[in-house]
Amino acid sequence: MSCVFCELVSTGEARWVAQEPAAVAFAPLPADEFAPGHTLVVPRRHSVGLHDADESDVVAVAVLVRRISRAMISALDATGVVVLNASGPNSGQTVAHLHVHVVPRWDENEETLPWLRQRSTRTLPAPAHQLLAAELRAVTS
Amino acid sequence: MSCVFCELVSTGEARWVAQEPAAVAFAPLPADEFAPGHTLVVPRRHSVGLHDADESDVVAVAVLVRRISRAMISALDATGVVVLNASGPNSGQTVAHLHVHVVPRWDENEETLPWLRQRSTRTLPAPAHQLLAAELRAVTS
Repeated sequence: MSCVFCELVSTGEARWVAQEPAAVAFAPLPADEFAPGHTLVVPRRHSVGLHDADESDVVAVAVLVRRISRAMISALDATGVVVLNASGPNSGQTVAHLHVHVVPRWDENEETLPWLRQRSTRTLPAPAHQLLAAELRAVTS
Repeated sequence: MSCVFCELVSTGEARWVAQEPAAVAFAPLPADEFAPGHTLVVPRRHSVGLHDADESDVVAVAVLVRRISRAMISALDATGVVVLNASGPNSGQTVAHLHVHVVPRWDENEETLPWLRQRSTRTLPAPAHQLLAAELRAVTS
């Protein structure tokens, strides 16, 4: 396989936040995290970006992004979230499989807003992906 | 009314890209544009962000974001798009009504990636919101 996210979805080796029929969510590699809890939401079916994805896959991703945003506030004590996607050439996209970043926010003084330029220094009482996964299991919508 | 986007949706004074039953899209004020074609997608019903919006409104916004991404590539000759949302306190959100930025991308050397730090210098043959609105009318999905 040539797509690392297709491979990830099939092999199951990740810090999973959610594994749903059409979309999954997981923590990026630690070196790529903007903040604890930083989560990538990805459709199982391959597309490069929003522009070439089936509408149903975009919907599945959006529904999961919303649930994760809520879980970041309830389970990570975040005050807000930043959601980002880069799709297609020259967008800054680094992996050519549709993925949406969801990043929790706590302190307005923590970094330069609105586009995240520095990493958060926040610490959490447990691995963030485990806190999020537990919250998603506990909450139905 | 205290919400400028609720007011905008009701009074209809904007550079409209799309006006649909549950979501609308329009160009931001020129001073706030990152690039020609920069579009905000907003649910008609008020919520602050992704975290407190009804799932149906998030879905309506996501479906419209996908269509606009495709229109940016087909009608504005963009190679890709960047999609951003800030929801809730400390996220960098400036208007407290859910809005998703969709920004076309053309040239990787045009600005620092992936988070937009400078404005695009791209010029288009007609007002971008008119090009996008025409494309959305012409394409059903």
